[in-house]
Amino acid sequence: MARRLSELAALVGGEVRGDGELAVEDIATLAAAGPRQLSFLTNPRYRAEAAASRAGALLVGPDVELGERTLLVARDPYHALAVLLGVFHPPASPAPGVDPRAIVGRDCVIHPAAHVGALAVVGDRCRLDERAVVLPLAVVGADCRIGARSIVHSHAVLYDRTELGSDCVIHAGVVLGSDGFGYATHEGEHVKVPQVGKVVVEDGVEIGANSAIDRAMLEETRLGAGSKIDNLVQVGHNVRIGRGCILVSQVGIAGSTALGDYVVVAGQAGVAGHLRLGKGARVAAKSAVFKDVPAGGQVAGIPATDAAKWRRQQALLQRLEDLQRRVRALEKRLGEEEGGEG
Amino acid sequence: MARRLSELAALVGGEVRGDGELAVEDIATLAAAGPRQLSFLTNPRYRAEAAASRAGALLVGPDVELGERTLLVARDPYHALAVLLGVFHPPASPAPGVDPRAIVGRDCVIHPAAHVGALAVVGDRCRLDERAVVLPLAVVGADCRIGARSIVHSHAVLYDRTELGSDCVIHAGVVLGSDGFGYATHEGEHVKVPQVGKVVVEDGVEIGANSAIDRAMLEETRLGAGSKIDNLVQVGHNVRIGRGCILVSQVGIAGSTALGDYVVVAGQAGVAGHLRLGKGARVAAKSAVFKDVPAGGQVAGIPATDAAKWRRQQALLQRLEDLQRRVRALEKRLGEEEGGEG
Amino acid sequence: MARRLSELAALVGGEVRGDGELAVEDIATLAAAGPRQLSFLTNPRYRAEAAASRAGALLVGPDVELGERTLLVARDPYHALAVLLGVFHPPASPAPGVDPRAIVGRDCVIHPAAHVGALAVVGDRCRLDERAVVLPLAVVGADCRIGARSIVHSHAVLYDRTELGSDCVIHAGVVLGSDGFGYATHEGEHVKVPQVGKVVVEDGVEIGANSAIDRAMLEETRLGAGSKIDNLVQVGHNVRIGRGCILVSQVGIAGSTALGDYVVVAGQAGVAGHLRLGKGARVAAKSAVFKDVPAGGQVAGIPATDAAKWRRQQALLQRLEDLQRRVRALEKRLGEEEGGEG
Repeated sequence: MARRLSELAALVGGEVRGDGELAVEDIATLAAAGPRQLSFLTNPRYRAEAAASRAGALLVGPDVELGERTLLVARDPYHALAVLLGVFHPPASPAPGVDPRAIVGRDCVIHPAAHVGALAVVGDRCRLDERAVVLPLAVVGADCRIGARSIVHSHAVLYDRTELGSDCVIHAGVVLGSDGFGYATHEGEHVKVPQVGKVVVEDGVEIGANSAIDRAMLEETRLGAGSKIDNLVQVGHNVRIGRGCILVSQVGIAGSTALGDYVVVAGQAGVAGHLRLGKGARVAAKSAVFKDVPAGGQVAGIPATDAAKWRRQQALLQRLEDLQRRVRALEKRLGEEEGGEG
Repeated sequence: MARRLSELAALVGGEVRGDGELAVEDIATLAAAGPRQLSFLTNPRYRAEAAASRAGALLVGPDVELGERTLLVARDPYHALAVLLGVFHPPASPAPGVDPRAIVGRDCVIHPAAHVGALAVVGDRCRLDERAVVLPLAVVGADCRIGARSIVHSHAVLYDRTELGSDCVIHAGVVLGSDGFGYATHEGEHVKVPQVGKVVVEDGVEIGANSAIDRAMLEETRLGAGSKIDNLVQVGHNVRIGRGCILVSQVGIAGSTALGDYVVVAGQAGVAGHLRLGKGARVAAKSAVFKDVPAGGQVAGIPATDAAKWRRQQALLQRLEDLQRRVRALEKRLGEEEGGEG
Repeated sequence: MARRLSELAALVGGEVRGDGELAVEDIATLAAAGPRQLSFLTNPRYRAEAAASRAGALLVGPDVELGERTLLVARDPYHALAVLLGVFHPPASPAPGVDPRAIVGRDCVIHPAAHVGALAVVGDRCRLDERAVVLPLAVVGADCRIGARSIVHSHAVLYDRTELGSDCVIHAGVVLGSDGFGYATHEGEHVKVPQVGKVVVEDGVEIGANSAIDRAMLEETRLGAGSKIDNLVQVGHNVRIGRGCILVSQVGIAGSTALGDYVVVAGQAGVAGHLRLGKGARVAAKSAVFKDVPAGGQVAGIPATDAAKWRRQQALLQRLEDLQRRVRALEKRLGEEEGGEG
């Protein structure tokens, strides 16, 4: 359904520069958008593409100049994009009810507005709240809880006693609550330490495809409210993730480590076990953290060190050849033999 | 069934050195092969094992000398091995038809020679072409297309609107089309940016177990024809992979990055978002690419730099202790105190 | 059920310091334990928490002093913890039998005390030994063998001909026996090399969630008895893992590499193909191994080198700024211009 720009601007607290009566039918990328579509410039590196776009209008931030283009100006254009995409593409909800081909255990409490899909398996004594969704072939173990509006995609597996808050999204292939990796090596044998805790996922957490979150040895592994976890991420047993954290794809957090609120761990980084990362700490992509990071700290490298220091080191490494040459020159001036070089 | 060497040689455009009438029953490794088996030497590091092998004959490349052994000489022995393994081990095809225990949605167009296994779930309006195969417990969302002869293994999940070309292999646990990792952080909350695009996989692509390919925010994430993707690989939203690319295990490609044709990304390497890797670029294992790579470029390191330069840096690092010693010697000669060392 | 400390001490060959008649009802962490619970100090970094714990008693190693606390002293307290957790939390076994909603192929030999859950799929000619367990929605291909007491969790997939020994644990989402990553590039096309071998898992192996173990091109990929593999680990085709090895989360072992017994590869490390790691070798987290490692060798870094040498290099890197400064000082003293610096 087409929407007028002025109407869209109102939804995001923005304003139109140009014809507010212009109606757009959808949102599209700069390259694909035509005159009946809204496009967007949320990353300055695409400025040239924006100028060349055939889009009928462009969603931009303040202070963006694009000549005569019709603009929808929002203070936070990326957030506005999130809102407007939801306007044009409202999420579909599956019909309420338990599919007769699902397998549901005893003593479950399933809200009538919840959905359990065909061939999904739900164990005994589970509770599914209003509009909770378990898609076909998902597995929910015994004694689990799935909060309101949370969705468990196909082929996700919740081991027994996993708790999901409300408004969570658990993507396909996610495993919540598998055993932590704990062995006591005794007389040459790795003896399994029973992992008898659980996983607790607070409200508003999204977990990407094929990520694995281990249950605690005792008590709980906990993912804080509003945290977002990308695909193929590993979270070890007894880890505590604060609120609003971001773990990018292929990150690993080893056992018993605690992340404060709003910690960001960039792609493929790893954090060793039993550490503390303070509130707002940031770990650069591909880093390996072996020490605590204070609140607000930014670290990079293997082993991770202060990010600014790491950048200086990298710059020095680029000049290492030069440094070696200069030392050789000094040695020559002092009439030395050039010994010691392999 | 036993095959004469001369017959096998004809199949691969090779020639026999020795008794072409010799019949072999199978192909085996150098260590395991006996007189009735063909073995192969495709990697020079196994030359001694080849000389010691009990194999009746050896598949080798040109210019390989192995004394009196019976040889099947092929210009490209590894390619010949691929062909000959297929001769001795022809792939099995499941019987055509939809298993009555599968769940198939409305308005699907399923070729009579396609196969849908027991407990597989296929959504509404899907199209499966000739000899497409969906194995037990695989999930194909609504509005998907699976091209001729493509196979979707058990526990793979295709989210809605995923398109597979022909001759693709999607291994167990692969997730195609889960939401890209996009959030607009607004007043302390990570607001989900709806991911309303799709994944398009062109012809002849193979994707390894438990890899995850995210759907685009808008439009499509695209994997080019003939590209091969190993296990546990992450491909972010809006990525475009060219034709004939190779992504080795545990690689991650972040969102909106584009790889030209025949790019090779070696194991555990990562490529940041919004980059361009030109045709034939090669990324070394365990590297982290944060900048564009030109066509034919070879990069290595964290951050990735020109591979030859990276190798020189590594060599210098090995001599850093020596360099430090030389500087100290110079300082001594000049009568300085050895200040500044922690 | 409450247990007296003296009874618990007897089970682990330990001794009580204090009141052996004290009964405890469970084991809990230092922070959570109360007077009716046993806690433990197995990692010295938690000594202060141990001193402050409200636990009724503490399981500790020899030579730990904690004032007047009641102690259960064991020679190897972490191993004792493993044993005692099993006392308080005995593992549940599913009821014997094949669920009528499971799909089991022809000519299978399933021990009457084995369990096959609802909607699990077991192929033709499989053998399941005593108390083997296949949980709901797991997939066991044709011609597989599952040894006594081994458990295959939901959504694990065993491709055809996979062999599991006894007492194995295969967690959710694990893929055993998918095709190895082998292609012969011929005239611009990556031609698939058929992967016709299998995966053999020896007794007592545990494999974490969403790990992927490829079948061999020929013969077998083999995981040695008692080895423990964490989540999201990749093991390539034809790899041989010795007995009692430890592969921590997100490790990758490339094709045809062989690990001796008791090799430890720490988190996110990678090992290139066709290498040999000798008995007891240890690879540090996040390393990339490109060369053989001798028995007992310890390596770290990218590329991995001797771990002690790597640590010295890291220390030197921290002082690189200082080294550069010293060279500049020498140059000044010699009256040189500061040329050569970019």
